[in-house]
Amino acid sequence: MPGTLTGVGADGRITLAHGGGGSAMRSLIDEVFLAAFTQGSPAVQEDQARLDLTTLAQAGDRLAFTTDAFVVEPLEFPGGNIGTLAVCGTVNDLAVGGATPVALSAAFVLAEGLELALLRRVVEAMARSAAQAGVRIVTGDTKVVPRHACDGLFVTTSGVGVIRPEHTISIAAGQPGDVVLVNGTLGDHGAAILCARGDLALQTHLQSDCAPLNTLVDTLLRAVPGVHCMRDATRGGVAGVLSELAEASNVLVTVNEAALPVHPEVEGVCEILGLDPLFLANEGKLVAVVPACHAEHALAAMQSHPLGRNAAIIGTLQASASGQGAVHVVNEFGGARVLTMPSGEQLPRIC
Amino acid sequence: MPGTLTGVGADGRITLAHGGGGSAMRSLIDEVFLAAFTQGSPAVQEDQARLDLTTLAQAGDRLAFTTDAFVVEPLEFPGGNIGTLAVCGTVNDLAVGGATPVALSAAFVLAEGLELALLRRVVEAMARSAAQAGVRIVTGDTKVVPRHACDGLFVTTSGVGVIRPEHTISIAAGQPGDVVLVNGTLGDHGAAILCARGDLALQTHLQSDCAPLNTLVDTLLRAVPGVHCMRDATRGGVAGVLSELAEASNVLVTVNEAALPVHPEVEGVCEILGLDPLFLANEGKLVAVVPACHAEHALAAMQSHPLGRNAAIIGTLQASASGQGAVHVVNEFGGARVLTMPSGEQLPRIC
Repeated sequence: MPGTLTGVGADGRITLAHGGGGSAMRSLIDEVFLAAFTQGSPAVQEDQARLDLTTLAQAGDRLAFTTDAFVVEPLEFPGGNIGTLAVCGTVNDLAVGGATPVALSAAFVLAEGLELALLRRVVEAMARSAAQAGVRIVTGDTKVVPRHACDGLFVTTSGVGVIRPEHTISIAAGQPGDVVLVNGTLGDHGAAILCARGDLALQTHLQSDCAPLNTLVDTLLRAVPGVHCMRDATRGGVAGVLSELAEASNVLVTVNEAALPVHPEVEGVCEILGLDPLFLANEGKLVAVVPACHAEHALAAMQSHPLGRNAAIIGTLQASASGQGAVHVVNEFGGARVLTMPSGEQLPRIC
Repeated sequence: MPGTLTGVGADGRITLAHGGGGSAMRSLIDEVFLAAFTQGSPAVQEDQARLDLTTLAQAGDRLAFTTDAFVVEPLEFPGGNIGTLAVCGTVNDLAVGGATPVALSAAFVLAEGLELALLRRVVEAMARSAAQAGVRIVTGDTKVVPRHACDGLFVTTSGVGVIRPEHTISIAAGQPGDVVLVNGTLGDHGAAILCARGDLALQTHLQSDCAPLNTLVDTLLRAVPGVHCMRDATRGGVAGVLSELAEASNVLVTVNEAALPVHPEVEGVCEILGLDPLFLANEGKLVAVVPACHAEHALAAMQSHPLGRNAAIIGTLQASASGQGAVHVVNEFGGARVLTMPSGEQLPRIC
């Protein structure tokens, strides 16, 4: 409904006044952000949200706190938009640390000239993803910059969550003998964004895997409370996580290439473009490291969840003979190659 | 030291690789962000910070959570830079709600081609302001976008703090009879940014008032625990705060124009350009509303602090005869005008 918002003309676009601290900004906050995030509950606008600390301290012994900036291009893509990504990304950063997500903040940088209808779609996607994850968006901020100063829309979400005492998940807690799992096919988000950019003449049905993983993590942790490490595999892909794991836990990670779950269309895109799904970004995939004795149980727990149906055991941890962490990828013929991280991602603005 | 960072060439500029999730990003995080924010303490990199909830719950009964995006232009200005602003802004949002700031997050969107030396100065300013406020920057994120997609550098800071049970500060808690105070001269930040842009041929010595207000707030709350409302007067200035106060508390706010503390140079800039210091942005000024019986005590407490030396009583609250909140400004001759908020700020990218 362009024109229903103070400061928006017949062309339905955001103006500098929407970031100016006056009545136009107030109208944008009330009619777009609060309307979506508070389901119409009025709320006096404080510059901070307040959460009951006694309740939080009863739910766990540590507060998790995380932040992520999102600059994905294009802003909308098959499977979601920058809003879906912003909520899921922060929910997942909390969840993989063993935290139950409690509340999110959202800060927007909007370019003058941004379509209000697009902003509404982004905000509605954020509200939907937050509802799906069972988390509230409780505080926020909006800035508008001249059209030459920013490319459409950036969102930064931060989140707080509560960690229960029994969870001591850390990227440095991997032990020789542990087993590495993923909850499904690799590289769906990266491949979907690549195709959505339209520079390639590839026609695919690929969708981003963008999803909040907190209920999957709940299911996994209830089945196997003693998960050693967990990390969502976003920029840098599963390869990035395994490299960090190898270094932080000082172990040799051996990956069984034949066991990696990859969607046939992603495999096709990778073959055509010479990419490796291990390095492609995901937005609904995590790597979990568990003691070998719990591996099958962890796998079954993941597979029982809709977001873990294609979960797989993909590797193992061993003591590092050299004293330095490393990742080896073993192919179906038994040949091993050392996995090394590239200096940067081939694809900027993936998330 | 350009060239000492992976992915930075002889020209000393940020490249897309610094946001790619690979070794260049790792180098940026370790050598720029962690070096400044953790004072060299190693720390395994988790994607979340963890704070002890028992300690937090002993310090207060509510957790405050806030976020702000910063897009100020120019990035460096007399009195600070975007980093100073980002830390002070979030510390102040926490403090004026009665919260003791505990931890901050920082998310950066960098443009490809940004000077590494400038980024270092911003990060060092953040570390200095955080140390001044006694708060830690505990988690972060970095994205790099192509040079056409963003104008230099945006920072989003979020913060958590703890509110003690005796503090029930709210913009809706103003009562008829209450007195309004500010901690010093109005509009210094707005006027300094205006002059720093260089579009005007004004030569001034103006500096932004950018400062963390948490110790001033501590001093005030120790003297007068029953402060009703407090708000930092950023975008929209003191006028914006008073408008929100009038509406949320449903009172008539009467401001004594002659009592407003204004730096002579700011007054000069305002006269030349036809601006009103009440509407100009501040980054180290707050509005406090206290019961009349505590007003002199509150003023003396503020004036005892270095950031409150020019504190003043500027107005009073009365019951609203119309049933609707309003702000009246009374000049030295007793003439009153109704203060109305403009639709947007005259000056975009003020913070």
